[in-house]
Amino acid sequence: MPQPTIIALDAMGGDKAPDAVIDGAAAALIINPNIKFRIFGDEARVRPLVARHASLANAIFHHTPDSIPGDMKPSAALRQGRNSSMRLAINAVADGQAQGIVSAGNTGALMALARLVLGSLPGIDRPAIVSTVPTMTGRCVMLDMGANLECDADNLVQFAIMGTLYARAALRIQAPRVGLLNIGSEEMKGHDELRAAAVILRETPLHGKFIGYVEADQIPHGDVDVVVTDGFTGNITLKTIEGTAKLCSNFLKEALQSSPLAKLGALLARGAFMQMKARMDPRAYNGAMLVGLQGVCVKSHGGTDARGFTNSVLVAAQLIEEGLNERIKDEFAKLYGALPNGGTSAAPQAVEGEVLS
Amino acid sequence: MPQPTIIALDAMGGDKAPDAVIDGAAAALIINPNIKFRIFGDEARVRPLVARHASLANAIFHHTPDSIPGDMKPSAALRQGRNSSMRLAINAVADGQAQGIVSAGNTGALMALARLVLGSLPGIDRPAIVSTVPTMTGRCVMLDMGANLECDADNLVQFAIMGTLYARAALRIQAPRVGLLNIGSEEMKGHDELRAAAVILRETPLHGKFIGYVEADQIPHGDVDVVVTDGFTGNITLKTIEGTAKLCSNFLKEALQSSPLAKLGALLARGAFMQMKARMDPRAYNGAMLVGLQGVCVKSHGGTDARGFTNSVLVAAQLIEEGLNERIKDEFAKLYGALPNGGTSAAPQAVEGEVLS
Repeated sequence: MPQPTIIALDAMGGDKAPDAVIDGAAAALIINPNIKFRIFGDEARVRPLVARHASLANAIFHHTPDSIPGDMKPSAALRQGRNSSMRLAINAVADGQAQGIVSAGNTGALMALARLVLGSLPGIDRPAIVSTVPTMTGRCVMLDMGANLECDADNLVQFAIMGTLYARAALRIQAPRVGLLNIGSEEMKGHDELRAAAVILRETPLHGKFIGYVEADQIPHGDVDVVVTDGFTGNITLKTIEGTAKLCSNFLKEALQSSPLAKLGALLARGAFMQMKARMDPRAYNGAMLVGLQGVCVKSHGGTDARGFTNSVLVAAQLIEEGLNERIKDEFAKLYGALPNGGTSAAPQAVEGEVLS
Repeated sequence: MPQPTIIALDAMGGDKAPDAVIDGAAAALIINPNIKFRIFGDEARVRPLVARHASLANAIFHHTPDSIPGDMKPSAALRQGRNSSMRLAINAVADGQAQGIVSAGNTGALMALARLVLGSLPGIDRPAIVSTVPTMTGRCVMLDMGANLECDADNLVQFAIMGTLYARAALRIQAPRVGLLNIGSEEMKGHDELRAAAVILRETPLHGKFIGYVEADQIPHGDVDVVVTDGFTGNITLKTIEGTAKLCSNFLKEALQSSPLAKLGALLARGAFMQMKARMDPRAYNGAMLVGLQGVCVKSHGGTDARGFTNSVLVAAQLIEEGLNERIKDEFAKLYGALPNGGTSAAPQAVEGEVLS
């Protein structure tokens, strides 16, 4: 029997917590019975929910009355959140009692706490938020989605390497096409850091293929598997995709109400609409990972229901089981050579004659 | 009888030129008979097309065999394009022979030539590309869409003022809601220049209302009428909207082919789908303006057909007839006071006690 994949759950995070968390976790167990949970939350509210699922009988429960409110500032969470369900769940990963943590709670707090408690993988200057978006042909990995407002060329190169390994582990794309998000107009193309990153990436051995600059409309078109960008641009791109998908679906709904004939057609094609909606549904790809940390940390959407949370748990388990973090460690060790101080948060030292020199 | 609105046409610009240009111009005349055209292009190719439309009998034709190729670099266009249809059409505006120019040609070349030949309006540091995107409740004005990669706070404030006046002139929204595009996550919110621009805008009298930061998903939702951002972010947001709309429509098409019932439903609801598609159709809002120049300069999409070009012409005419540029001039004169050198390309001088001091 294989070792179980142990995941710490912040049962109190998210708009629909703890219900969505516990129901979502129980559903994930049906799909991947190898998972074992450590659940952190308020006994009085969580225990009765856990009791409803026989499959959760093996879960280890840790009581704490504290939780991080959705609107708490990261700095306050660092100071006041020491006994929160989120913090204790992260601690469990740092202590080796779990391999990953999943939370639908306060994003800023989760990032701040996870960075502080877990620390970066050797060679990684800045952890990044990675997620996937739907495309004509499947899914596309994007990073950074908002952890780092401004990024230099080295950050972008590190994102490209982590994103490539993420695409292999999460989407099982063996040789992902990697692109730098840029704008099209000639000559003025690109910030300096993008040009510098492109120069480095052309020389960097990736487990994939660097295809150069990509424009934003190439993402939904499926022209690229890993899109690398700074956190400001990435976050805006993601929110634009979500907002536009909602707009299209609303326009469709209104159009289908516009005449009796359209209404009849809508009734007959109902299954097709559900199918289309499902392909754009953010819940289907719920789960953004904070990649580059010593431990798997997955953020589920704050407004998620049980179905979305299930997906986040399954993503976390898959990344643990595929050994994503070990692969990142190996890759950076190969690329950058031995790191002087074990590497945490240190700038990578290029080895003489190495690709980054 | 009112003075005609005189528009110079680059008949040779765009993938479907000159046909789409001439047919589009003729169609625009039916909707707005007040327009008079000066047409610049290759006699042998353009004359026969013009002859097909009785309404174009009054147009003034200027022969030139030269045109700017779609892939020519802006710097080359400046050097080699002196006799091109695009350059001559812009010259006509500078000489007062036309009030505006419309081209579906090379964007970079058009921007470079228009900036050089027309010059900026007094008080404007950097012209910007402005366009509109569809929303749940109508349309939203966005700028900059790609003319300026990086923008400081003053640039963004100027964009906000120009965007507000554009929304009034082009969309007839009397008191537009103006927002700065930003990301959501607390504390780390925003680049420095965004914060600085927000501080200034809170104190600037706009013919509208500054509502602070907006996130990208609020644009399609219709929460804001004028979105202000740098050209890099704006271009990526626009391309993301276009790409995602295409993705949704493709998913729908595939879903509707997935079963006989769906196919029948699709047939009945055909009108509704057309209606939905029309609302997302880029041709319906074709025409990006390079705003802030001494003259109206509208860029039609390179791949546009006659219908899209018609729209670009109508937008240009409306902006001329609404006196957009005069309004911008007045507004900046009011806000910044008298400008030392007539103002072209100079940094605006804040008047003692004025809002920008």
